[in-house]
Amino acid sequence: MIPPTDAAIVTVGTELVRGLAVDTNTSEIARALSAVGIEVREAVSVPDDRASLTAHLTRCGAAYDLIVVTGGLGPTHDDVTREAAAEALGVGITRDPRLASGLQAVAARHADPRAAEQVFRQADVLDGARVLDAVLGTAPGQVVRTARGEVLLLPGPPREMRPLLQTYLRDRSGARSEPVVLRCAGRSESDLQMAAQDVLGDRDDIELTVLAAPGDVRVVLFDRGAGAAALALAGAAIAQRVGEACYSTDGRSLAEVVLDLARAARVSVATAESCTGGLVSGALTEVPGASTVFLGGAVTYTDDLKTTVLGVDPSLLETFGAVSDAVARAMAAGVRDVTGADLAVSVTGIAGPDGGSADKPVGTVWFGIAGPDGVRAEMRRFSGDRHSVRERSVTTALDLLRRALPPE
Amino acid sequence: MIPPTDAAIVTVGTELVRGLAVDTNTSEIARALSAVGIEVREAVSVPDDRASLTAHLTRCGAAYDLIVVTGGLGPTHDDVTREAAAEALGVGITRDPRLASGLQAVAARHADPRAAEQVFRQADVLDGARVLDAVLGTAPGQVVRTARGEVLLLPGPPREMRPLLQTYLRDRSGARSEPVVLRCAGRSESDLQMAAQDVLGDRDDIELTVLAAPGDVRVVLFDRGAGAAALALAGAAIAQRVGEACYSTDGRSLAEVVLDLARAARVSVATAESCTGGLVSGALTEVPGASTVFLGGAVTYTDDLKTTVLGVDPSLLETFGAVSDAVARAMAAGVRDVTGADLAVSVTGIAGPDGGSADKPVGTVWFGIAGPDGVRAEMRRFSGDRHSVRERSVTTALDLLRRALPPE
Repeated sequence: MIPPTDAAIVTVGTELVRGLAVDTNTSEIARALSAVGIEVREAVSVPDDRASLTAHLTRCGAAYDLIVVTGGLGPTHDDVTREAAAEALGVGITRDPRLASGLQAVAARHADPRAAEQVFRQADVLDGARVLDAVLGTAPGQVVRTARGEVLLLPGPPREMRPLLQTYLRDRSGARSEPVVLRCAGRSESDLQMAAQDVLGDRDDIELTVLAAPGDVRVVLFDRGAGAAALALAGAAIAQRVGEACYSTDGRSLAEVVLDLARAARVSVATAESCTGGLVSGALTEVPGASTVFLGGAVTYTDDLKTTVLGVDPSLLETFGAVSDAVARAMAAGVRDVTGADLAVSVTGIAGPDGGSADKPVGTVWFGIAGPDGVRAEMRRFSGDRHSVRERSVTTALDLLRRALPPE
Repeated sequence: MIPPTDAAIVTVGTELVRGLAVDTNTSEIARALSAVGIEVREAVSVPDDRASLTAHLTRCGAAYDLIVVTGGLGPTHDDVTREAAAEALGVGITRDPRLASGLQAVAARHADPRAAEQVFRQADVLDGARVLDAVLGTAPGQVVRTARGEVLLLPGPPREMRPLLQTYLRDRSGARSEPVVLRCAGRSESDLQMAAQDVLGDRDDIELTVLAAPGDVRVVLFDRGAGAAALALAGAAIAQRVGEACYSTDGRSLAEVVLDLARAARVSVATAESCTGGLVSGALTEVPGASTVFLGGAVTYTDDLKTTVLGVDPSLLETFGAVSDAVARAMAAGVRDVTGADLAVSVTGIAGPDGGSADKPVGTVWFGIAGPDGVRAEMRRFSGDRHSVRERSVTTALDLLRRALPPE
């Protein structure tokens, strides 16, 4: 079969057309398909309604080489994707004994026998389908031939969908090389865009995209004919130009880079948090194996705890306030002493919406870094709401740890 | 005209089908339409391609009472929404002199005469259209009659789209009542679905949807003709049947409910975390004003810190291991002592992927609760990967705090 060249994405779920959830699957799948040269011509969200889904699958099946469907593969009565796809394709559905036996342990957890029985609907497979075994969750993916090409059925939760999509696309790579992704912190989206554009000039065989999340910017190069070697070369040239702001070119997160650098340098790490409330340690411990270098931390939300747990001198709090150079340094030094860590970071700031003042507006955040060579502090002013100030603060704290560690 | 009862949302932009942007307009518009009783039957994203957009508008115009289109109303050559809509509806386009005169200042800013001329494309109005003047930006909205109802053309940038959508919907409120949402923790999606279904029976004037996130399930009831009073009554009946598992019916998150209950009871709260690494305190401090009841917490990732910071007896760690009833209780009691909090929760578990054993597999998590009446512990076994075990652990810790507090 000729590989598909155009595609539709169909996302299934009443929550999507009621505005109860933002559909992020479409964007993620579209990016993945684009990267291997498949052009998405439409993306449609439909409710958990069998007739409506059947109509869309019939329409898209006649119009496109590939249809990627997410959602509606779970166990409950409103999971109708299997039935709709079978009807649109004119094939039957058969319960797969191997999949059913794999679901027995899950079914056994339900007290209600009807709920237990429903679990096995996830073993129902369209006749002739290739099964993509679930990597996370319990719903497998299914690939079914159509007159024009294929339908790929994937579960809706992004974490379950992602590995199955990758499995499906693995065989199709090589059409174009994988995109090169530079992850950066501490420089603005526009700065990074300019720097990358300067390196690329007006070449049109590499497509540049800059994607920004709070405090974390990705410079993405898509292969539009340049080939893997030229893409890698361009990526390296941009990384060199961007300098220390680029923290990874191999997909690692900022927390992973911090832990890898600490591990390589045999440096143990601790945290002292106020306005981030534990999210810096939360980000570090998200990485498997964090325990080899991360010892722990303190969340000292009140002034009292800053003093009793971290030993911050009450006169510093009184004179300079909790959000200050002096207190950030004392918190970092204090948690380093308490935990015995080699390197400690502290965060104390005003996340809002209340608590701001003329000289310390909402978004003012002080960071302390304490290591064997001493203690220092840095201040940032972030814009945005409470959530965004906290997110940026987490990224900045991790980035300060990274820059305080010996480079690779 | 009878108010529209069903609708399609069409979002226009090549970036949407390439995965270069996440479409948030659909979710926002769908929520706004649902709130006034308009049922969105599909939401489709299409590239900046006139033929494709014309085809979708023709198809949707025949199928739905209302089509809301966002994007493609700007000045450049790839803004094709006006032309596509005119073609689909079989009407002409005329430049509106009032709009054109309002664009003169904008046009004058362009040095290039071709760019200046393009600006005036935003004054091109479909024949018979009602114009919604731009509140932000320069592209106005347009409302055009179709055989079945109306097409509403809106600009793509959310800030420009939002006020025009509000203008359009202002006259339509009151048709259907707001959905009722029950947020639940500690019961499975299927169990809650069954309970709600049992209460609703086979009535078709209320639509049931169950949305699940790790450890957090929402039971949503949509008004399909029942009316606000009957919807509220059904919600209350389901809440009663579900019992303590339902933690809010007013949109509050679990962390918000915990903080509100603690505030009402004048109870201060602290946390001691191992496998969740600070995410429980992170969730509590996400809520503005958390500082009135949340004092702080300890992230004791190593055994040493459990002893030095929380005073956990080393013999407990040696005899029972860090993931145990005894250590969970000692951590909760310890952080309660250290912080002086009235109520403390602890979490110690094996998030994986490593560290599991036959009697303590990955996903085994112990929770401790220490209050004025003493200390107790509970164990859970979660399935899923590290991220999901941690998410479920956070929800469970918050839920244990909630159940330990005096009810409202």
